[in-house]
Amino acid sequence: MPNDLANSLDAALRQRARQVIPGGLWGHLNAANLPEGYPQYFVSAEGCRLRDADGREFVDFMCGWGPMVLGYRNPMVEAAARRQAEQGDAMNGPAPVLVELAETLVGMIPHADWCLFQKNGTDATTACVTIARAGTGRRKVLVARGSYHGAAPWCTPSLAGVTTEDRAHLLHYDYNDAASLQVAAEEAKGDLAAVIVTAFRHDMGRDLELPDPAFVRAAREICDVTGAALILDDVRAGFRLHLGGSWEGIGVRPDLAAYSKAIANGHALSAVTGNDRFREAATRIYTTGSFWCGAVSMAAAVATLNELRRLDGPAHMRAMGERFRTGLAALAARHGVGIRQSGPAQMPLVLFEDDADARKGAAFCSAALRAGAYFHPRHNMFLSCAHQAADIDLALQAADAGLAAVARMG
Amino acid sequence: MPNDLANSLDAALRQRARQVIPGGLWGHLNAANLPEGYPQYFVSAEGCRLRDADGREFVDFMCGWGPMVLGYRNPMVEAAARRQAEQGDAMNGPAPVLVELAETLVGMIPHADWCLFQKNGTDATTACVTIARAGTGRRKVLVARGSYHGAAPWCTPSLAGVTTEDRAHLLHYDYNDAASLQVAAEEAKGDLAAVIVTAFRHDMGRDLELPDPAFVRAAREICDVTGAALILDDVRAGFRLHLGGSWEGIGVRPDLAAYSKAIANGHALSAVTGNDRFREAATRIYTTGSFWCGAVSMAAAVATLNELRRLDGPAHMRAMGERFRTGLAALAARHGVGIRQSGPAQMPLVLFEDDADARKGAAFCSAALRAGAYFHPRHNMFLSCAHQAADIDLALQAADAGLAAVARMG
Repeated sequence: MPNDLANSLDAALRQRARQVIPGGLWGHLNAANLPEGYPQYFVSAEGCRLRDADGREFVDFMCGWGPMVLGYRNPMVEAAARRQAEQGDAMNGPAPVLVELAETLVGMIPHADWCLFQKNGTDATTACVTIARAGTGRRKVLVARGSYHGAAPWCTPSLAGVTTEDRAHLLHYDYNDAASLQVAAEEAKGDLAAVIVTAFRHDMGRDLELPDPAFVRAAREICDVTGAALILDDVRAGFRLHLGGSWEGIGVRPDLAAYSKAIANGHALSAVTGNDRFREAATRIYTTGSFWCGAVSMAAAVATLNELRRLDGPAHMRAMGERFRTGLAALAARHGVGIRQSGPAQMPLVLFEDDADARKGAAFCSAALRAGAYFHPRHNMFLSCAHQAADIDLALQAADAGLAAVARMG
Repeated sequence: MPNDLANSLDAALRQRARQVIPGGLWGHLNAANLPEGYPQYFVSAEGCRLRDADGREFVDFMCGWGPMVLGYRNPMVEAAARRQAEQGDAMNGPAPVLVELAETLVGMIPHADWCLFQKNGTDATTACVTIARAGTGRRKVLVARGSYHGAAPWCTPSLAGVTTEDRAHLLHYDYNDAASLQVAAEEAKGDLAAVIVTAFRHDMGRDLELPDPAFVRAAREICDVTGAALILDDVRAGFRLHLGGSWEGIGVRPDLAAYSKAIANGHALSAVTGNDRFREAATRIYTTGSFWCGAVSMAAAVATLNELRRLDGPAHMRAMGERFRTGLAALAARHGVGIRQSGPAQMPLVLFEDDADARKGAAFCSAALRAGAYFHPRHNMFLSCAHQAADIDLALQAADAGLAAVARMG
């Protein structure tokens, strides 16, 4: 918010919102959880630039919390969406683009023999669990402690309104700890339906961890031995790390996978992909929604996936992420500020040494924001194909201001 | 499908889809569940007309299973959506239109002091239940036998992949039976969190029933006495029967209500509205999604609600529904075919006497389809503001052909 609160449109909108929306805003987009100065409302966006209600422009490192993988208002995607919107969207059945999209995904993702579409990442992870239970006739699901798989009662981080029974059949392991996975699998005995794992470890506020290949292979083996489904929750990372699924680099393939966020460059869509072992189970579960055959988001998805392939999106984002990471490390050294950078380069996290109360992260982000870059102090950030070297360099200038602010804290 | 299957694009698309989508299509839009001749794929739509992949055009009585309340590709709604899309959709926070939409709903729906937005009807009904549990600190929810409240494990009609615990705290009553509601409430003892009720009874394949005012008042009273939340599931009926909520005619107001389908004329959106008793609980639950602040569907919703108000949409749809109902009754009498028409005129259902195996309904619908009208044999249909007298009369001509086919069955 600008210093002149009385003239801030953002502040005025927040005040009106507090009357008609509990807490001003639900969930993860609530700017009340961010350091001083972050805007809540945005009026426009293009490429990797975002403009807030008070007219401030930022180089954006959150990409709408992930969806924007090609950049805001990508011309190819928006043209495809507009062409479909001029024909029809939610009709009495799907448009032909449904088949084109399903064939595109099955052709692109090696483990996938089939797919289903929904609207939310949570729809996709929930459908994976339901299909695994239907296919195995078993109930227990192994979940990593602290992992985020969505906001339904079985997985939401807040227990308000959740009953014990909503989580009756979850057992927990520690991410990247194969031994703990084995213990949990044994606890499930003959009732193990699924192991669900995020593409990498991205628990809020702690260093990101790439998946240990030995851990991933152990998960695959436990599922092979017990007949349980290995579910890859690729909602957050999907299509940024590898177009064939985030574990293709490790060479391990899941039975079921959940995608959303980046699949249609911001149009609401999610998908489950599965192998033939679970095809019949997927026909037996009943999961549907009024907008799930909406053709506009599917046309946007086909355009997004084709464009990601044409550009080799993951490689571009990795290169831009590495440019940022290298530049930031040099700046931090120059300021004498200890930082920890973690995660895949396309989805980086920056934390500060000796920052238990998160004051350094907050000071860094607030100062960088004033200097024109939108970073996040606790959550992994997201690069896009719209980020070019000049944008990264601009963000590094803003980061320089942020590091100076941290250095001044002593 | 046209008789010449070899040249049917619809048949070709279905065959490709069977390879990459389990069962060809998930959920309620699967045309395999419909009588002979129904198309699966649609290439375009406008107003109340729908065109399938083989170029056949229909007067549509399903409106995309409800969303299309102003007609397909309504110019006012699409212009508003396009204007917002040219600024931004899913960004790092909402656009100002979020506040405008929330204020519109709170201004329009008398029980509503606040609202939340999601993507699916299921998101909204599930959030209502979670908020009710958070607000009361109790667990039991009373659900009518056979009512549809969405496709999550707690409410989906198929039990495949669902565990007993997913439904541990549901107790059942019979719709429109106040005594059964009282019995279920007593069974819940001090643990009653909510009573959830659809706007009217619309169980698939049986005559629709309007809500008995005495039953609705009993539900309100049980909640008042016990402190439980009365949840109106207005996902299917909302904005077609009354712009202030479907029970405004009865004069009973819920504590929480779920909306979706018609709220944005086909753009993916749902909403929870609530009163101040549950505001604090709504701040405590965690429910969110990557696309829930998408500004395009919100701009579409504002335009839809304003247009419904300007046109007095419910009155227009009622008049068109009554024209259809009266015309159909006269035709049925002329053909000597016994039919039962039920439900609100805006959302009519037509069933046949002596039709336990549903063959008459199938013959009626198939023949009407060939004559250019898209009806449904078992599910309530939907009128829209795009239906004008001439469209109804065209549909009646097709219904005439359908009734002739039934009469020929003897």
